[in-house]
Amino acid sequence: MCGNKSNVKIYGIMENEAEKPYVIGLDMGGTNSIFGIVDQRGTIKAQTAIKTKAYPDVHDYVAAAVEALQPALDVIGGIEQVRGMGIGAPNGNFYTGNIEHAANLAWPGVVPIAQLFQEALGIPVRVTNDANAAAMGEMTYGVARGMKNFIMITLGTGVGSGIVVDGKVVYGSDGFAGELGHLVVDHTSEGRSCGCGRSGCLETYCSATGVARTAREMLEKSTLPSKLRELNPAEITSFDVFQAAEAGDAVALEIFEFTGKLLGTACADFATFNSPEAFVFFGGLTKAGDYLMEPLRKAYDENILSLYKNKAKLLVSALNGSEAAVLGASALGWE
Amino acid sequence: MCGNKSNVKIYGIMENEAEKPYVIGLDMGGTNSIFGIVDQRGTIKAQTAIKTKAYPDVHDYVAAAVEALQPALDVIGGIEQVRGMGIGAPNGNFYTGNIEHAANLAWPGVVPIAQLFQEALGIPVRVTNDANAAAMGEMTYGVARGMKNFIMITLGTGVGSGIVVDGKVVYGSDGFAGELGHLVVDHTSEGRSCGCGRSGCLETYCSATGVARTAREMLEKSTLPSKLRELNPAEITSFDVFQAAEAGDAVALEIFEFTGKLLGTACADFATFNSPEAFVFFGGLTKAGDYLMEPLRKAYDENILSLYKNKAKLLVSALNGSEAAVLGASALGWE
Repeated sequence: MCGNKSNVKIYGIMENEAEKPYVIGLDMGGTNSIFGIVDQRGTIKAQTAIKTKAYPDVHDYVAAAVEALQPALDVIGGIEQVRGMGIGAPNGNFYTGNIEHAANLAWPGVVPIAQLFQEALGIPVRVTNDANAAAMGEMTYGVARGMKNFIMITLGTGVGSGIVVDGKVVYGSDGFAGELGHLVVDHTSEGRSCGCGRSGCLETYCSATGVARTAREMLEKSTLPSKLRELNPAEITSFDVFQAAEAGDAVALEIFEFTGKLLGTACADFATFNSPEAFVFFGGLTKAGDYLMEPLRKAYDENILSLYKNKAKLLVSALNGSEAAVLGASALGWE
Repeated sequence: MCGNKSNVKIYGIMENEAEKPYVIGLDMGGTNSIFGIVDQRGTIKAQTAIKTKAYPDVHDYVAAAVEALQPALDVIGGIEQVRGMGIGAPNGNFYTGNIEHAANLAWPGVVPIAQLFQEALGIPVRVTNDANAAAMGEMTYGVARGMKNFIMITLGTGVGSGIVVDGKVVYGSDGFAGELGHLVVDHTSEGRSCGCGRSGCLETYCSATGVARTAREMLEKSTLPSKLRELNPAEITSFDVFQAAEAGDAVALEIFEFTGKLLGTACADFATFNSPEAFVFFGGLTKAGDYLMEPLRKAYDENILSLYKNKAKLLVSALNGSEAAVLGASALGWE
């Protein structure tokens, strides 16, 4: 699994693997790294964290992580009880075990993160990006348990996706498949500019930042009264929009209507790919609940090809938000 | 594999399966059904055909097929030499072995076609639709040999697709995955109405009929001189457009430019699903060669997410057009 297999030292991990009842999950963000030790039912038995940002050298990061993990490992009887480790990391590549050119991490280029942890902990380590990890988490512990074909959509700062076909996450030819947040939903010259350098990507509309952007646009284009006008437009967040919607603000409701409609229409397009039995939505934006999900469902039903009508469920993740990323990463550890 | 397994009679097919050197491929169209007996290198050793339309009862169809196959089977030493049969059929469902509600076949509802042939021939029979069969064909005998992740795009009367992930065709939750021809590329009110009842589907632009439609639209909207103006607009075909392009007709070249650009842009979107190592294009429209492929490649390169840049090859099928469908179907017979 690692880029350079010859460097990987395995310390007798093949023995009694099946009997080891825990895995380690690492949710690696640009700021924080959260580690959880998880059992087969998806209960986090112990947790710890370090600051990702504090370690400009990845070797120091791994050393600090291993040190921080020690007390957590003591809780469950030591590393001998751990079957494997899964890492959800920006630009994590499942095939190579590397983090490749992650813009929001301090480590440049290609970082053999799986190999480093594998050497330090002596257990098998797998890496993928956070959306794929979320898909694994839903399949292992969440609403997609037992499903073989579904699409995970994560609605955070960006829009991520993990596509599951025949019970396996699709990694594609290079380990980077499943970037539906960068499927272009507006090919006209009106498409919003995206951080990826192109325009009209789904994530410029349906992420938390996309919702804030919609808010600014709508407030500018209309003269409708809105609580959101009391805020500095540059500082409006999707949570502000949610709060305004809760208070019955017409503009806020319209913003979620627009967002849900666009996302539901996009999902109807995504269904042509793998005819999923479900879409699972996860992330901050799902807290908007029916403000988002109702127009989403409506647009999906209106736009879905008749062949797929009434087939896919549109589900919101039921995993505890703060735990889900760690659980998702940990799910890779069972593989 | 069949809907009702208990009805399937298997006549000792498990013995020496590996040694049987041939498969039968059936390319079932609304008008004709073409059968080929194929060896492992993709050579069609014998061929026969019947009129699909001539048999309003599917049982008569199967009986006629088996009779027509007999002389072809004699060439290779009888059915004992045949490992299995693959059928590419409209709305063919790989999971159930059925043809389900195919609009252009005389048999209504759900037809257990795999079961019927299995009973009549005593060999395993698998069914899928023609685009998935084409993907199997390319993977088994064509330009996608050795590839594990690619997308097959068939450009005929409609636009079909077969998506391959980890060396397997994606069938999805219901057997009907991979309908990229019905991914909506124009979500505006300008989207062309599609046979599926919706608007803006890729196939309304990039199929042979889509090209003819573009021709009619462009001729109407402009006053540019064109050889195509000599034809009855309602009767213009994609082949007429190709011939005009060959003669340097500016409108015809513009039509392919438009078509290729749209298809290349769509493929850049498709890449976000499975990050394929190739797209393989097949069907009548590919005869337009560089008139189509040049703008297609250009649009793909201009629109692809940087993560996927210079990764996927854009290939045209090299299989003999008239044989490819039979070869594609036959590839299922090896499974």
